[in-house]
This record gives sequence, C-alpha cells and structure tokens, in this order.
Amino acid sequence: MKAFIHHGLPGFEGAAYRDMPEPTAGPGQVRIRLKTAGLNRRDLRILHAGKEGDPPIILGSDGAGVIDQIGPDVHGIHQGDEVIINPTLHWFKNTPAPPPNYEILGSPTHGTFAEFIVISADQVEPKPSYLSWEEAGVLPLSALTAYRALFTRGRVQSGQTVFIPGAGGGVATYLVQFAKAVGARVCVASRSEEKRQHIRKLGADVIIETGQDWLEALEGDKVDLVIDSVGAATFDKCLTILKPGGTLVTFGATAGDEIQLNLRSFFYGQFNLLGSTMGSQEEFREMLQFITKHQIRPVIDQYFPLSEARQALHRLQETHNFGNIGLHIS
Amino acid sequence: MKAFIHHGLPGFEGAAYRDMPEPTAGPGQVRIRLKTAGLNRRDLRILHAGKEGDPPIILGSDGAGVIDQIGPDVHGIHQGDEVIINPTLHWFKNTPAPPPNYEILGSPTHGTFAEFIVISADQVEPKPSYLSWEEAGVLPLSALTAYRALFTRGRVQSGQTVFIPGAGGGVATYLVQFAKAVGARVCVASRSEEKRQHIRKLGADVIIETGQDWLEALEGDKVDLVIDSVGAATFDKCLTILKPGGTLVTFGATAGDEIQLNLRSFFYGQFNLLGSTMGSQEEFREMLQFITKHQIRPVIDQYFPLSEARQALHRLQETHNFGNIGLHIS
Repeated sequence: MKAFIHHGLPGFEGAAYRDMPEPTAGPGQVRIRLKTAGLNRRDLRILHAGKEGDPPIILGSDGAGVIDQIGPDVHGIHQGDEVIINPTLHWFKNTPAPPPNYEILGSPTHGTFAEFIVISADQVEPKPSYLSWEEAGVLPLSALTAYRALFTRGRVQSGQTVFIPGAGGGVATYLVQFAKAVGARVCVASRSEEKRQHIRKLGADVIIETGQDWLEALEGDKVDLVIDSVGAATFDKCLTILKPGGTLVTFGATAGDEIQLNLRSFFYGQFNLLGSTMGSQEEFREMLQFITKHQIRPVIDQYFPLSEARQALHRLQETHNFGNIGLHIS
Repeated sequence: MKAFIHHGLPGFEGAAYRDMPEPTAGPGQVRIRLKTAGLNRRDLRILHAGKEGDPPIILGSDGAGVIDQIGPDVHGIHQGDEVIINPTLHWFKNTPAPPPNYEILGSPTHGTFAEFIVISADQVEPKPSYLSWEEAGVLPLSALTAYRALFTRGRVQSGQTVFIPGAGGGVATYLVQFAKAVGARVCVASRSEEKRQHIRKLGADVIIETGQDWLEALEGDKVDLVIDSVGAATFDKCLTILKPGGTLVTFGATAGDEIQLNLRSFFYGQFNLLGSTMGSQEEFREMLQFITKHQIRPVIDQYFPLSEARQALHRLQETHNFGNIGLHIS
C-alpha cells in the first residue's frame, strides 16, 4: 500500500512517499481503509526528531475511513462501518493524567498517512454523520485537545470570558467554536490580519492584534480563563489580563517553552496554571457528542493528496494555515 | 494603652513599644482586651517596607482576648465573651479570590500588638474552649493559610501523599497536622536537624534533609500534592517529585519568588500550579470546626511579653523558631 513515512535522517530528508506492507487485523483489531487523514504539529516534531537508523514509521495521528477487515474477538463493529479514529492510545477513563503506557497514534505505532491502518477496535468511534470525510479526517487530535483544555481543565462556564492568545492552528478554531457554543465570551489575539478575519467569522467577540496592549484592547475587563498554546512569547501578557482567581490552561508552546514566573504575584492573584495535553477516550466520546449536539464543523485550511503529504507538512511548518490541513487518501 | 508600633524609618529602627490612644467601639464594632497575640512573617515585611512619614501603625494580625466593649448595632456578642480574631478583613464567602477591598488586619488597620483592639464584630469568632490563650493567640493567620492551601486549593484526600518543602514556620506545623488528620501520608523537607526532629513528633511519615535527592529519599514514589512556601530555591525539585496530574499549591516564597518553568514538561505532566493566600471568613470558620473536631493544637515556639515584641520579631526574622511565636499581653 502507499504511505507517507519517516525513517533515518531528521527532517524532510528522512520523509518519503512509498510502498509499505499492507497490515492485517489481529485479535481485537480492525483494519480501516482510510478516506482522509489530518496533519498536526506533532507530525513535524516527529519528523524533526528522527535520527539515523530509525525504522520506517508511517506518520499521522488523525484519520477517518471505512472498516474493511475485522480481526478475531471484535464485537459491535461491522465491515463497511464509517469510523473516526481516536488518536489517544491506552488512555480510556478521564483520569487526571494518562497511564504510563499512554501513546499517541503515529509513532511509535504506524499512523494514518497510508491507505490502510490496523488498530485496536476500541480506538474507533462512529463517524458523526453530519461531517464530511474531509471534516472527519482532520477532527480528532485538535478537537480532543481543545475539548480537554477548555472543559475538563478550564471548566469554562456560560457568561465567562475566555482569552485565546494565538489563533493560528487547528485547536484555536475549535476553542472559539466550543466556547461560543456554551455561551462564553471569546477574545482572540493574532499577529496575522488574515487570521483575525477568519477568527471573526467563527464568532469571536473581541479580536486583538498580538502586539497591542491587551488590557487596553479589552477595555480593562480582565478575563476568567486563558487557553494558551503560544507559550513563552506572550506568557507574561496572559497573566496581566487574568482576573484574580482566574485560570490559565497551557497545552502548547509554539513560541518557546521556558518561562519566568513571579510566584508572589501568582499566589496573591490566587491564579491557577493547569497543564493539558490530548485527552482520554471518555473525553473523545464526550467531544463527539458535543460537536454533534452543536453541529460544530472543523475549519479546513487545505487538502492535499496523500502523495503530496510533504507539501502539506511544509504548509503546516510555515504556519500559513488557518484551520486544519488534510490529506485525501481514497 | 501600651502597643508595639511601627512608623517612619523602615526596619527595626522604626519600631517602638509605646503608648497609643485607647480606641472606642463604634457602630457594628467590638473592643477586645487582648490576652495574647501571634507573630507572622507579614509583620516583618511591613516593618521593612515602612518609609519615612508613615503614621504610627500597631502591628500584628493574630490575637485572642475578651470582649470588653460593644458598640451600637452589634448582636449576639456579649461582654466577657472569649474570642479569637479572624485576620481576613472584608472577605466573607469562599470565592476564588478575595474582593478588591480585602485587607489583612495589622496595616493599614491597627493590629493586635496592643492592650486593646477595636474591630468589626463580624471579625470575631468564639475561642475554641480546648485551646489555651497562648494557643488561640497564635492560631489564626497561619492555620487559615494552611487550611485554604491544603483543603480548598489542594483538595487533599485520605490516602494521598503530601509533600511540604520547608518545615520552618507556623504554617507547616498546621499542614502536617491537618493532612495527617484526614488520613494523608505526609513528607517534609527541612535543612535543620532540630526542625526535622520536631516535625517527626507531629506525625510526619517521611522526613528529608533538603539537600538530599528527594525522589531517592521517597524511594521513587512521587507525590500527589506539594504545598510550598519556599519558592525559588526548591521549586524545580518540587516538580521532579510530583505525580503526573499532581498539584503544587504555592502560598509563599521565603527563598525567592522568581522561578523558571518549562511549560512543555508542565503540560505533558498535566500538572496544576495553584496560588493561595490567607482565606475567607467561611474558611476561617471551617478551620475552627476542623481543629476542634480533631483537637489540633498550634505548636508554640516561644512567648514574649508585649514589651519585648522587638526580640520576638528578631527571633522570627532569624527563622530560629519552630512553630508559632506569641506575645503575652494581659
């Protein structure tokens, strides 16, 4: 089968579109003929972290497709079922942290940038029928990340104000839609005029140029919750706009991960800094119910054929995208 | 009346034991003849932050005594009632953060290092009868701080392991006793052999020399909760012993308040960093019920007469104390 893999040298040099052996479903497993797959920044990190001697690994955490082979001891799933893949492996219940054997699909296990994937049957969920294949294929990782960060960790409430510094990637587009769906007021900062315009269409209430004085732009109204994936570049600014007792959920650090923090200001402010990453199977299912109830759709930036996964990853690396980038497979 | 005050120059130069006008209870207020008062590091901070031209201010946040004058419009309090003072002003309900007009007793309002104090009637609570005057006088601020940090913020549960880096001050002695009372396992670090011996007597399960490798000393068992008031000096070490999904409550920074934090490790660890300081009236009342139920007593380091408040503050500044330092007043 055709697949987009990484092996050997770090970076794009180690990446290739090539033939890989077609996998077969073992006990408890299903094989999916993938229709679509989605890109995540994690794919780039794995590409760049590669080293000589690595075995070939099929990249990709997100995907959707049709069940085409069912292994022994699998119940309740049928040939031809349309499914979406939960990329969180081995983390089922909504515990404070994943178990030690937790993994994300797509390294060290083979991922979704391929014609077929074999995966444990408990990693698949019915594809929400109102979503297109293009929408379903890019949804899982970023929508799950947004769900856990905003609800399980941030516990956003109707009427609260949520601030999202950095409107670029896929997760932000879900954060805005999810927060609006529960009746929160949403403020977003972005450096890009184009992204600010996109965010406006998603329903954000206040849209700020990142370089502005944020508190001034908010007319002095501090916020209840910040959901941040920018990290070092704007961390200090996030705390200046947080209400006493407010919460900052951190789930990414695209602009640096080493921050300085004044503990005294932090505890006098009764602040909460909460780390979040991915989510459990329980949260994945809640997220699917939530988006179905509110008919929320992923924002699609651009689709490429699987054979052009390299170009798709370049686009993601250059952060030109607004919303999710996907791959057409079949 | 006699009082220990600060005015003018910063530091001990601006401190004096002298006569101050005897206050009178106005509407909604009571006057207390103080029996005992307690010292806190806050008193030292106010002393050292003083500046020329400051009006004389009576120091002290903690105290207990007998009602001896009742102003108009006060109900349910009687002459001769034995009371303990809640040092948190204007923060009544257990909200995520105190209201904007929140203050701590003892600057800018006159405090407890005096023969009399006039205070709003809703700031006094019945003295738990099993406590001596010496115990009641030193209890309020540090026991309230410990209560909020450990229960409201840290949500400690029976069976969890709590780590307390720094066993010195008053708050740590309550943290150990409170956590043991609810069935938690308690680990404490201290640089001082003498303090480690004291902590052992309070029931701590594991006692570590601060310079040791903490994780090794814990035999590799990470902890659920860290309640920290040391700050910069040991902040990194705290995160190395915290379980994934674990919580660090910060309520002080005696060894520096500027810390560095790696956000990526923090969110991959699903950690929680929660700021805490003081507590509300609601928490003060819960704390009094809790200590009464468990018959918990403050650890008293040493008592001085009010006239020797200066020497008492020196002892606190040199951190030679284990437990609370108090002043006998009448």
